[in-house]
Amino acid sequence: MSERSRVRRLPERGSNDEAVLHAILDAHYLAHIGFVVDGQPFVIPTLFGRSGNKLYLHGSAASRMMRQLESGVAVCVTVTLVDGLVLARSAFHHSMNYRSVVAFGTARKIEGDEAKGQALRIISEHLLAGRWDEVRMPKPQELKATTVLEFTMEEASAKMREGGPHDDEEDYELPVWAGVLPVALKAGEPVPDERLKPGTPLPEYLGKFPH
Amino acid sequence: MSERSRVRRLPERGSNDEAVLHAILDAHYLAHIGFVVDGQPFVIPTLFGRSGNKLYLHGSAASRMMRQLESGVAVCVTVTLVDGLVLARSAFHHSMNYRSVVAFGTARKIEGDEAKGQALRIISEHLLAGRWDEVRMPKPQELKATTVLEFTMEEASAKMREGGPHDDEEDYELPVWAGVLPVALKAGEPVPDERLKPGTPLPEYLGKFPH
Repeated sequence: MSERSRVRRLPERGSNDEAVLHAILDAHYLAHIGFVVDGQPFVIPTLFGRSGNKLYLHGSAASRMMRQLESGVAVCVTVTLVDGLVLARSAFHHSMNYRSVVAFGTARKIEGDEAKGQALRIISEHLLAGRWDEVRMPKPQELKATTVLEFTMEEASAKMREGGPHDDEEDYELPVWAGVLPVALKAGEPVPDERLKPGTPLPEYLGKFPH
Repeated sequence: MSERSRVRRLPERGSNDEAVLHAILDAHYLAHIGFVVDGQPFVIPTLFGRSGNKLYLHGSAASRMMRQLESGVAVCVTVTLVDGLVLARSAFHHSMNYRSVVAFGTARKIEGDEAKGQALRIISEHLLAGRWDEVRMPKPQELKATTVLEFTMEEASAKMREGGPHDDEEDYELPVWAGVLPVALKAGEPVPDERLKPGTPLPEYLGKFPH
């Protein structure tokens, strides 16, 4: 493990354990991708899938990010789940409960329709397991218009915080509400497309999002 | 406007309008900060506040990110709200409803206890308006342990998508559920700290999160 992914400052909140990393990655679906062009950092949000220590990304073949990443530049992929706001009696001890993974590595372009289809399936299943088998599969020209990347996590670290506030002893007497406001991504009621064929059943997997 | 923030590929989904940018930034509280160290991109999640075209960040004075950013390096700040999963009848036309801002600029360290306090108040009010006036204010040694940064958005672009799926005409006949699964950050029931003084009222502003 090198300096860039060593867990610093608050080691009790960090981990480089693979099972911890994978559990956080599998609990979310949105990644923020960092890359550098001419010294300028870019951070772009995108969906992802995971299989082992590989993350899969996709996008338009015309996208600036895809073209940069496929060239093999250094990439940072960050996934963050906010679990709650931690309200202390003092401004200073306010905090956030969260789980995050910061992963470093490089990406390669997946070539060949079969391999691309398999990687797209991983992304789809990561988001909504069961959906892929129901929908119309990509046509060759759709695959051609899509770049699919495999990002290898060469180094990664997880950070997390949980539990309530930790106030200075003398502040516990203050008449200030303290505790945790839990926060989570929640799905609402599905909104059917206006051209949905009457009688089409609502898929069960929608009720499992977010997992 | 330069190449780095020009809205590309799908101009109907992009904007450089200040009111649009500010509305997205004010609807969220978590930013992903991109910066470069020796050619390696880092993407780190953190809370933020906004006032005009300035974003305010804070962290431990010992934090690697704070020390990098205060040196004036190029920074990218990205804020992303996911609003829904867009389920089409074909794998290819699946999409995500979202609002995001990608902002480029540099940060400077705020010096002086009064100015630091004002910036911390902006961050706090951005998250939970009303909280700051109730809690114990930072002590000088707490301010000293905290770095507060002002990030000036030199260029920024918003991207967004809304609405239902757009399928190929022949796919509308497929017996596949299509529509939008709305997704949002929601607050749960507040969890009082175990040492909360009995009778302390629950602040009204908790019910307004996320705004």
